[in-house]
Amino acid sequence: MLDLQPLLCPRSIAVIGASTQPDKVGGVPIRLLGELGYEGRVYPVNPGADTVQGLRAYPSVAAIGEPVDLAIVAVPAPAAPDVMAQLGQAGTRAAVVFTSGFAEVSGGDALQHALATQARTHGVQLLGPNCLGAMNLRERMFATFSPIPLSGVPPVGEVGLVSQSGAFGAYAFALAREAGLGLSHWVTTGNEAGLQVADVIEWMANDPQTRVILAYIEGARDGMRLRRALAAARAAGKPVVIAKVGTTAAGASAAQSHTASLAGEDAVYQAVFDEYGVYRAHTLEAFFRLGYTLARGRRPNLWQTPSGMPADAVSPVAIVTVSGGVGIMMADSAETLRLPLPPMPDAAAHTLRTAIPFASTANPIDVTGQVVAQPQVFVDALANVARCGQYGAVAAFLAGGANAPRFWPVLQETVTSLHADASAAPLLISGVMDDDKRAWLEARGCLVFREPAHTMEAVAALSKAAAMEATTSADDGAQNLSALSVAIPEGAVENGALSEAEAMALLAEAGVPVVPHGLARDADEAVRIAESIGYPVAVKICSRQILHKSDIGGVVLSLQNADAVRAAFERVMLAGVQARDANGNAMQVDGAIVARMARGWGEIMVGVRRDPVFGLVALAGIGGTAVEIFRQMAFGLAPLSRQRARAMLEQSRAAALCIGHRGHPAIDLDAVADVLVNVSRAAAALGDRLDTLEINPFIVGPDGLTAADAVITLR
Amino acid sequence: MLDLQPLLCPRSIAVIGASTQPDKVGGVPIRLLGELGYEGRVYPVNPGADTVQGLRAYPSVAAIGEPVDLAIVAVPAPAAPDVMAQLGQAGTRAAVVFTSGFAEVSGGDALQHALATQARTHGVQLLGPNCLGAMNLRERMFATFSPIPLSGVPPVGEVGLVSQSGAFGAYAFALAREAGLGLSHWVTTGNEAGLQVADVIEWMANDPQTRVILAYIEGARDGMRLRRALAAARAAGKPVVIAKVGTTAAGASAAQSHTASLAGEDAVYQAVFDEYGVYRAHTLEAFFRLGYTLARGRRPNLWQTPSGMPADAVSPVAIVTVSGGVGIMMADSAETLRLPLPPMPDAAAHTLRTAIPFASTANPIDVTGQVVAQPQVFVDALANVARCGQYGAVAAFLAGGANAPRFWPVLQETVTSLHADASAAPLLISGVMDDDKRAWLEARGCLVFREPAHTMEAVAALSKAAAMEATTSADDGAQNLSALSVAIPEGAVENGALSEAEAMALLAEAGVPVVPHGLARDADEAVRIAESIGYPVAVKICSRQILHKSDIGGVVLSLQNADAVRAAFERVMLAGVQARDANGNAMQVDGAIVARMARGWGEIMVGVRRDPVFGLVALAGIGGTAVEIFRQMAFGLAPLSRQRARAMLEQSRAAALCIGHRGHPAIDLDAVADVLVNVSRAAAALGDRLDTLEINPFIVGPDGLTAADAVITLR
Repeated sequence: MLDLQPLLCPRSIAVIGASTQPDKVGGVPIRLLGELGYEGRVYPVNPGADTVQGLRAYPSVAAIGEPVDLAIVAVPAPAAPDVMAQLGQAGTRAAVVFTSGFAEVSGGDALQHALATQARTHGVQLLGPNCLGAMNLRERMFATFSPIPLSGVPPVGEVGLVSQSGAFGAYAFALAREAGLGLSHWVTTGNEAGLQVADVIEWMANDPQTRVILAYIEGARDGMRLRRALAAARAAGKPVVIAKVGTTAAGASAAQSHTASLAGEDAVYQAVFDEYGVYRAHTLEAFFRLGYTLARGRRPNLWQTPSGMPADAVSPVAIVTVSGGVGIMMADSAETLRLPLPPMPDAAAHTLRTAIPFASTANPIDVTGQVVAQPQVFVDALANVARCGQYGAVAAFLAGGANAPRFWPVLQETVTSLHADASAAPLLISGVMDDDKRAWLEARGCLVFREPAHTMEAVAALSKAAAMEATTSADDGAQNLSALSVAIPEGAVENGALSEAEAMALLAEAGVPVVPHGLARDADEAVRIAESIGYPVAVKICSRQILHKSDIGGVVLSLQNADAVRAAFERVMLAGVQARDANGNAMQVDGAIVARMARGWGEIMVGVRRDPVFGLVALAGIGGTAVEIFRQMAFGLAPLSRQRARAMLEQSRAAALCIGHRGHPAIDLDAVADVLVNVSRAAAALGDRLDTLEINPFIVGPDGLTAADAVITLR
Repeated sequence: MLDLQPLLCPRSIAVIGASTQPDKVGGVPIRLLGELGYEGRVYPVNPGADTVQGLRAYPSVAAIGEPVDLAIVAVPAPAAPDVMAQLGQAGTRAAVVFTSGFAEVSGGDALQHALATQARTHGVQLLGPNCLGAMNLRERMFATFSPIPLSGVPPVGEVGLVSQSGAFGAYAFALAREAGLGLSHWVTTGNEAGLQVADVIEWMANDPQTRVILAYIEGARDGMRLRRALAAARAAGKPVVIAKVGTTAAGASAAQSHTASLAGEDAVYQAVFDEYGVYRAHTLEAFFRLGYTLARGRRPNLWQTPSGMPADAVSPVAIVTVSGGVGIMMADSAETLRLPLPPMPDAAAHTLRTAIPFASTANPIDVTGQVVAQPQVFVDALANVARCGQYGAVAAFLAGGANAPRFWPVLQETVTSLHADASAAPLLISGVMDDDKRAWLEARGCLVFREPAHTMEAVAALSKAAAMEATTSADDGAQNLSALSVAIPEGAVENGALSEAEAMALLAEAGVPVVPHGLARDADEAVRIAESIGYPVAVKICSRQILHKSDIGGVVLSLQNADAVRAAFERVMLAGVQARDANGNAMQVDGAIVARMARGWGEIMVGVRRDPVFGLVALAGIGGTAVEIFRQMAFGLAPLSRQRARAMLEQSRAAALCIGHRGHPAIDLDAVADVLVNVSRAAAALGDRLDTLEINPFIVGPDGLTAADAVITLR
């Protein structure tokens, strides 16, 4: 982990290119540090001025006479590399470079490279260039040229915000200020010649002042660094909310393999986010609302579902509403989010019905418009469900009730009482109300939304947070699996691929069920293999150089007897001998595989490919037409955990083939997931040498999955 | 269409059960009408008081001495039917019944029936019971017991709001007031013993004061009435926004047929909404935002896509942003909504780049943070793209810019100038700003949002509105098709089904391609048919009473020669003779169908079923595993228009099988759509006698669709 202390908690700051005009890029930070109460030392560097905005100015950083923790650099781009060298020579520990005109403009790469090289050579930690800087709200440290803090600063709080985009960061800062959401740090990374968003996330994961991390990224420059950072946050039990934009752009790796083309790289980002429990936001509004929810919301108690894994933990919710209609909308939302709505306990239901005979005591609990006349009945219902121990959270819709003079005092009384009761379920409120009432409720642990559906989304997010905070490591830890070692047959790397026989052997060694098969060098051997494994069989050409066997007529299926096998062997061998590569050269043929035709009722395809950013990625989906038309593939980082493999089976709907499809017997989903885990472990064992691994199809049958074909390409 | 003039524009109002206390249910409306400026006559009816809230009170409605237009009824439920009779006898034209305790409570059905009967018998138009009443904002007519208008009323405007739920209606009223969204009428329908939401929509469709209709429904009591109302709004070019809740509840018709069980009734509501171009909202926030967008937003110019149908019209958008990051988010949103983002015209791009070399002149157009120093460049870019004629709309992200003292005046100048220019593309703005600035922009035709993605959603909604307003009838009008008449074979209705031979004949007559086939009574005839249509063939038992032919061994496929046909015929006939119905009786067998095995590369299933609310509904989807696992069926009202049929092929992804799937030739999608149209017309011709019609599978092959099997059940 990089130490960002000099950048984010500097004891002294030099401003290179300091301006006497407080609204210029080199002038704003001096004004901000001066006006907003930064307590460290500030040294303007400007060879043409004796003082800058009332501070003594220095002709150079060397003239300051002490090494500073942080330098703010606001000089023209061509001068920046030299400045960086001077900073390094003067012992500066970190530098923020505001200047634009580097890699974001054509021809600017070389200058950025020079800047980064100087920083690295001299051991200066570099933020930027082309960034809006950083802030530490607790320390009143504003190393930015955005004037936005002059019009007000959000409270000091526990949300750390990091954004590649400066303007996005500034807008989020303004929204936080407006909503009163407390921030710890604010960092924009710009061109990321030095620090990346991932580095900041990792540092925040270890920063005691930060409890929730909000990040905006356009793309990860270093996928492994991002993974490490997200793992650190996960281990620290700190929720990470990410707005990853550019989701619809054609993925850079789309052409890498057939399966990749079905997804685009966004699915790989999603798999990474799923792996580490990242909360993903697709709009600014959702980004911010998730930050508010996770920073301010009390965690619900969780109920375990039968499978008992923490990620399956759910929070039953009580919906208490003054409008039946809005209650139904909230119930729709709960069902979509898989939040259970158990009915109100009998005693509380009896109390409510006694007071309001027309009230609905099912869940949603509808107190009806009668709340106007009997506000106490509403808050009693709230308190009863919050305390009954049956619910993880209570979501109340008040409409405009909070502003009603007769309702507000009784609501206050109940909220105060519930706030003092640690065992009561947390309360989430929707409705319109004055800002002061909203703030009052928030100060007593209630989350307040305008949109009723947002209370349900908040419960879902908080349930996930509670489950992740309870188990700060990945749940059945793919990383805890003992490493597998597999042997690559001699010469295969040079050939760029394994033969099918080699691939099947490697997979079998890794614990992947494969169809009974054998490699035949002549027709007699083919028949002997067929007789020993039993009919019907397939006969397929076997060569490291022929990956698309069907295309050359190298596959014959459903052979029922010895004569048919003999004829098929001769045919596919002839096809193999006649096959030519792109240069017209003959292929090396090992023989033909004789394999039993696996019987089943469906096909699943499983693959592992190399993502240029994140490394080995496993994918799975229903085979055949489904994968091509519905494109419902699921992705996960290899090696997979069993839990992730199960989630992939659900996400791709491949699980539907396993749980009694069309009257076929149900097969054990955990066992199916373990096959995926073993495929991913085999791929991980091949590591850097693997290009792609694809098993298509896995036959789904009474014995679970059986691999009927496999292609492994190497690099 | 029902005339709601007496209800919504009454010249006189009697309040039955008028209370001297202005905060009681029977007192609130008198207070509202008095304080808020209603100019008609108000007659409190209360036998125990001489005056009520300063007005002369009457002992009975008869004592008023003139027939009133509207009566507000706030008497105990058991008294309500008698009151209704008295109202009728006194010549009252309409009545709002606030009282609860009718069909919404157990045992209350009889009382509601009595109330409705009295209203109908005496010709009184009934709103309610168990409703919150109605308002006409222009007339200051507040026939409600909700005190909410006392704390302020939204401006008079063009949005008509109708809600089954009173509390939902009241909350929407409060939100409209807060947002300054102008309303025309506000109606809550409660238990709908008389007027339904559909009646109010239909009246508003013809009301010159209403331009946009917002409706909340939990379920339609009369589907045909709702369809008629939506058709009226469509014909009047008035957008209808509907919040239909209860979407996740198991559909009432789920058990009706196999295909129904794949969808649930919500998909049928969606098909109805699609048919009439309804805007659907799943949250309160979206409901309201769509109302704001459609009521206030200028319509973009449309560009026709090649197919030339109005529903394919799109609006190219220019995104102009001060943040590259937010611009990417907006571009993601545009791509999801299928809004094209053509690049900035050269001249405007040159101007921008000259002023700000680092600006991005692709679309999103990123003026960068340089906007702070050069605000004029930003507004010039806005004006240039709005006027260049290449864009239907311009979506600008300002971040906090509007509040910046240097930026606001130049923005005002540009907005004023664009507002005066009818040919300029409409401007949609996102960002944070003070309320007065927002109002200023809105008054000049700009829509303003906080969330950048909402500007893109607004452009999509306004494009749809523009397309629908340009063609106020359904586009290629299924209703314009000449009616088809089909003959039902004698005795089939009694049997409850057609035989396969009869079903195939009926479909063929309706223009549906069916596989070559014939009905054989003996084995020789079976062979003759097979020889004449060509091998391979299938042989299937043919009986009105045997719908699940495979289940009894009544189907043999892929027969290659005469011997095989002869053997298959004997086998399926034996199976038919041995089959028994639930009572142990033998089945009537007509013979066996000999049908050519259709060749193709995919299967589509098409059906028509009877929805209990909306009548005949057609459905289509990819057959086999796909339909069961991915459940991606598409629905449409029968008879289908070609356009709707094409949309169903897209929505269900069945179109993917037709456009060059796996290297197979592409087949004409319009011709495929016409087959669906013909199926739906056959179903419509059977009309009330049809129970279900299912063609599963339609084989997709080089000649398009061919029906390989058909089941038609009658009632």
